[in-house]
Amino acid sequence: MAQAGVAAVPQTMRAWALFGPDDLRPVTKPVPRPGPAEVLVKVAAVAICGTDLEILHHGLPALVEGELPFNGQHVIGHEYVGTVVALGPDVDEFQVGDRVVVEVHAGCGRCERCRHGMYTSCLNYSRRSKGHRANGFTTDGGFAEYAVNHINTVYKLPDHIPFDEATLIVTAGTALYGLDVLGGLVAGETLLVVGPGPIGLMAVACGKALGASVILAGTRESRLRLGQELGADWVVDVRRENLADRVRELTEGQGVDLVMECSGAPDAMNQALYSTKRGGKICLAAFSREPVPFDAAYMVRNNIYLYGIRGEGRGAVKRGLALMAQGKISGKPFITHRFSLDELPKALETAEKRIGDAIKVVVFP
Amino acid sequence: MAQAGVAAVPQTMRAWALFGPDDLRPVTKPVPRPGPAEVLVKVAAVAICGTDLEILHHGLPALVEGELPFNGQHVIGHEYVGTVVALGPDVDEFQVGDRVVVEVHAGCGRCERCRHGMYTSCLNYSRRSKGHRANGFTTDGGFAEYAVNHINTVYKLPDHIPFDEATLIVTAGTALYGLDVLGGLVAGETLLVVGPGPIGLMAVACGKALGASVILAGTRESRLRLGQELGADWVVDVRRENLADRVRELTEGQGVDLVMECSGAPDAMNQALYSTKRGGKICLAAFSREPVPFDAAYMVRNNIYLYGIRGEGRGAVKRGLALMAQGKISGKPFITHRFSLDELPKALETAEKRIGDAIKVVVFP
Amino acid sequence: MAQAGVAAVPQTMRAWALFGPDDLRPVTKPVPRPGPAEVLVKVAAVAICGTDLEILHHGLPALVEGELPFNGQHVIGHEYVGTVVALGPDVDEFQVGDRVVVEVHAGCGRCERCRHGMYTSCLNYSRRSKGHRANGFTTDGGFAEYAVNHINTVYKLPDHIPFDEATLIVTAGTALYGLDVLGGLVAGETLLVVGPGPIGLMAVACGKALGASVILAGTRESRLRLGQELGADWVVDVRRENLADRVRELTEGQGVDLVMECSGAPDAMNQALYSTKRGGKICLAAFSREPVPFDAAYMVRNNIYLYGIRGEGRGAVKRGLALMAQGKISGKPFITHRFSLDELPKALETAEKRIGDAIKVVVFP
Amino acid sequence: MAQAGVAAVPQTMRAWALFGPDDLRPVTKPVPRPGPAEVLVKVAAVAICGTDLEILHHGLPALVEGELPFNGQHVIGHEYVGTVVALGPDVDEFQVGDRVVVEVHAGCGRCERCRHGMYTSCLNYSRRSKGHRANGFTTDGGFAEYAVNHINTVYKLPDHIPFDEATLIVTAGTALYGLDVLGGLVAGETLLVVGPGPIGLMAVACGKALGASVILAGTRESRLRLGQELGADWVVDVRRENLADRVRELTEGQGVDLVMECSGAPDAMNQALYSTKRGGKICLAAFSREPVPFDAAYMVRNNIYLYGIRGEGRGAVKRGLALMAQGKISGKPFITHRFSLDELPKALETAEKRIGDAIKVVVFP
Repeated sequence: MAQAGVAAVPQTMRAWALFGPDDLRPVTKPVPRPGPAEVLVKVAAVAICGTDLEILHHGLPALVEGELPFNGQHVIGHEYVGTVVALGPDVDEFQVGDRVVVEVHAGCGRCERCRHGMYTSCLNYSRRSKGHRANGFTTDGGFAEYAVNHINTVYKLPDHIPFDEATLIVTAGTALYGLDVLGGLVAGETLLVVGPGPIGLMAVACGKALGASVILAGTRESRLRLGQELGADWVVDVRRENLADRVRELTEGQGVDLVMECSGAPDAMNQALYSTKRGGKICLAAFSREPVPFDAAYMVRNNIYLYGIRGEGRGAVKRGLALMAQGKISGKPFITHRFSLDELPKALETAEKRIGDAIKVVVFP
Repeated sequence: MAQAGVAAVPQTMRAWALFGPDDLRPVTKPVPRPGPAEVLVKVAAVAICGTDLEILHHGLPALVEGELPFNGQHVIGHEYVGTVVALGPDVDEFQVGDRVVVEVHAGCGRCERCRHGMYTSCLNYSRRSKGHRANGFTTDGGFAEYAVNHINTVYKLPDHIPFDEATLIVTAGTALYGLDVLGGLVAGETLLVVGPGPIGLMAVACGKALGASVILAGTRESRLRLGQELGADWVVDVRRENLADRVRELTEGQGVDLVMECSGAPDAMNQALYSTKRGGKICLAAFSREPVPFDAAYMVRNNIYLYGIRGEGRGAVKRGLALMAQGKISGKPFITHRFSLDELPKALETAEKRIGDAIKVVVFP
Repeated sequence: MAQAGVAAVPQTMRAWALFGPDDLRPVTKPVPRPGPAEVLVKVAAVAICGTDLEILHHGLPALVEGELPFNGQHVIGHEYVGTVVALGPDVDEFQVGDRVVVEVHAGCGRCERCRHGMYTSCLNYSRRSKGHRANGFTTDGGFAEYAVNHINTVYKLPDHIPFDEATLIVTAGTALYGLDVLGGLVAGETLLVVGPGPIGLMAVACGKALGASVILAGTRESRLRLGQELGADWVVDVRRENLADRVRELTEGQGVDLVMECSGAPDAMNQALYSTKRGGKICLAAFSREPVPFDAAYMVRNNIYLYGIRGEGRGAVKRGLALMAQGKISGKPFITHRFSLDELPKALETAEKRIGDAIKVVVFP
Repeated sequence: MAQAGVAAVPQTMRAWALFGPDDLRPVTKPVPRPGPAEVLVKVAAVAICGTDLEILHHGLPALVEGELPFNGQHVIGHEYVGTVVALGPDVDEFQVGDRVVVEVHAGCGRCERCRHGMYTSCLNYSRRSKGHRANGFTTDGGFAEYAVNHINTVYKLPDHIPFDEATLIVTAGTALYGLDVLGGLVAGETLLVVGPGPIGLMAVACGKALGASVILAGTRESRLRLGQELGADWVVDVRRENLADRVRELTEGQGVDLVMECSGAPDAMNQALYSTKRGGKICLAAFSREPVPFDAAYMVRNNIYLYGIRGEGRGAVKRGLALMAQGKISGKPFITHRFSLDELPKALETAEKRIGDAIKVVVFP
């Protein structure tokens, strides 16, 4: 059956490659072949993430092997879904024809972090020769007709979840990874989400699905309103109210148990600290490019823990997929715009400039 | 037997009380009586902690009930040891005559933090009416002949540990609490300790006792030398070398697994970050009074966790006591000066100005 | 306001006391007065638990202080809810008039287990002089008009949850405590629940609420059907099918990630083991009175962990309350019978003999 | 340099292969070649483990691919050390000439257990095509001149640890893995070790190194005496004393915090339960072949957790290596007999029959 599937795959495909900062061009590339423990995915939909725009402008944050990404070859895009069309040698975990969602990180499997399950902290990040792959970051991604994935980054998608909505599962994975490092048991806890971008809004939805009381803080009224539709118990417009004051008011003076900082605003770190209950926890899922002032004294005196997370570790995508399959979260409210793969530049511009109050822009190859 | 012990306790005692910032005076006070779940300790030795000097100058950091500390009554000093001389009602966990070491925090037992074992993060901090006690912070401490303690803050001291050395057990408790929140399993891990004050040096000793490879960073040559005597595998003089560069050199470019930041230097936070291996952990046991610049981007991209700790939680003092009882750590190298209780002002000055390169100054009532 | 509330409380109350095994009699008792950190609750509803029947027949399992329970005084019943009508000294955490749900265990607060948050494992279990209380076990419970509770065992109940349904919250607490010790992150995991009694059925409901795929195993068709209504994805009638075989069939040969054993059947332990995926976890929330055969070799070779739990620790009742308040679980499907307090013997008989397929029998004082 | 090393490796080697149960014969085999992520080790010493004897008599416990082990090819022996003599493609983590110690399990890296760091619970156990290797179990082991190892199972050995003593590091890894699952923070805790075989004795040594108070229980006087030399605070001869009674006597009636069951005796499970403090934990590192009676009621009522462990997971071998390198544990007291590889049958017989009170028998190729 695998062979049959492979037969149907063409030799070349359309894709968008990076030739330099802000220099994205359509190219024709060979369709990649899956190696051991890999599958080939025919991309059905791919959502645009803020990180895609970062890479487009600035390249990759971490040192990478070779000439990535501005080499006229590299394909970005990591929030994609599709159908398995070919299997690597020895792969029986998937079948040709499986609908699948993918996540970003396949660790090298041979460094001490990977060996202990921390595959998003792989010490061989970007070193393909060692086995590491970050789809759309250090290996070719989803702004193309086909993409190869290590099986560790692929999950079967039930038929009742449409492809477009499924592009939000990796976003849910990041939000859930954040909730996991905050302890996971969020039912009955108070959760402050700062920043109503896609990850923040998904943190609202996931927090509510798991039973938390959620406060959402942001600056844009339309986003706060969407947050309420997703279940936020309270919203705080930080242009009008002091966040920590308002949070204390809502929590009998104690502050919240948990914070997901998804804004990257320079003052968000300290505002998060001041909004946190003694002995509480904060997850950083966003960050300012520049160093920010940080009130370490407050953190120590109040026994607060702070977790920086990268991507969507600890199998959180599997949890996000389960919640969406059960109807506990949905990708639908996030999708504001749709484009064909040919329109990628326009899609990226829409996402970047938030044209039409864009939240998630989905591209269909 | 308890009654016999009680009979021997006088009505009044010598103590030092705070009348205002930097205004410490000898007073005669009634010897306190132990209530339910409390014991009375005849103080045998009390070490001076940097926090004592903080309170002396600036008062208490957290909001407290009543007029503390500058009320002409309050007695500070929290690193004390001694002998149980009277038992509160229903106390059978201790006997009169028991040699004991004490720790600082007895939580209220009725807030959600205490209920979940996080007694150093008690939400009723300083509220004695709710049951909270922080010895020498919010209740009378050990710069006196006698002090009352909740039994949760008292541990039996084996005969072979001298009282003076035992004053360092609470310091070991803080260092070990830090290692605990960093995961506890430090054997074979690389540990960077920043700041060779008493807690930092004790972190070196405890880290070595538990099998870590330890790098100690600081500015004073004498302290770094002492760190080496306590087992540090490498020392870094941060006036001469860039800390992160040197740490990378010592760790095959990876950085350390774990950091204990015990210096409170303004640039220590970022230096700690840059010295940490991807996926590593940092414990803050000290802090700068002013906000410091903080490279959140580095923290997130490298999946680093940061733990602020207050005091010596999770029963870490019991672990420190066990390690000292077994000869795996010692308080001896830390004690540089000894004074009688009458000489307390001189003792405090010695500690503050580090006269004679003072590390730990111990006072004997 | 508290005073006003106290004024309305009568001097005596109706209650049922134990005079010997199976010898329950109506008595008039003084209404108890709340001490420090306690409140008085006017009981509005109390559900019957299998443990009540155990105590009625056999007394208390653990050694207890004094003459409990067959002393003509002791009142059992621990799944109760009601209204706060009086406050102990210094209690401001609650107000007279608060609707509340209660849980069983208030630890002593002074043993090492309590100090570390393990209040259901209190080493001073049953010793009231040390502060331990297990409502309806070692202190008077809810088969009465009024009951005193330590504030650590009381949670505020939102107005929209009816009292009768709220009696199921403590059951949810036990189920959730079980899921917590199994790791808590159950979304997307496979969970086998063995034994469709109230705790098992609530484990199904809570597991589904948190996103697990649930298999329910039992012997009674009506209960399995109710399990399906509560969301079980599959049910297994263990009289007709081999449990482990069927579980393997449903899980691609691997077995489930997690098991909640709520049956106490003698062969349930090994069946649970054989149904568990390598590296999986089992929680024991029930047990056979007699020792059972146990395949330790299978457990070790497959790296399985096994957790015995007592009651509803780690604040799980708060989580159960949150899930019910949000409509994610409900007490309604469990309640099959209702009686007045005067009819308690009939209520107990109904529960014990499962008359009319009784699941939860609720009594109203 | 790697090439130079490879050049020195011969084409064939001496080894012992299994032809059937108890049918071990000397053979000449091709020296294996290291593949990707593998190294070739020239075996310097290999210790005999009880599991080697199990396999020799009964074959492998788990279903394995192919004809293992009685195929006239398979080489057992997994506690070996040696020198790296060749590197697989892309391996730069090691150099030819490195002295190394090895551990058993390299997970497949592609099942959910491996992905989350639980490589000893690999769901593809024994499936080499998927990448799993258990050295000396499902792949050729150390009763040979050379053996291939995945780099995840190799650690660099400092020069000052002799090869023979280093064979005990994997034993220490198992003992430490057990202490890890028990929580890791053993300083000041009471630890009962049942069964003074090599793992039990090493649990004594490691427990003491990390600060526990240790009780060792067994039946043979010579072994209990060795336990005392390794630091056990108390020993209990279970033929003369009731274990649980004696343990309660030594622990103020409470029982121990932690138990390592290393005996596999049929009554050891319940004796371990009865010796454990409420809320305590037990690790099973051994087991009876037949099901044993198990007092689940006691386990549940006392909130006890029970952990079955397989092998030496979570990087515990690295910790064992660190403790030995620092002189905190030693392999020397365990080694009672030495044989050349040609004498393997005699070595195995010595180990099995405990000739000359054999503890560890080491073989030198």
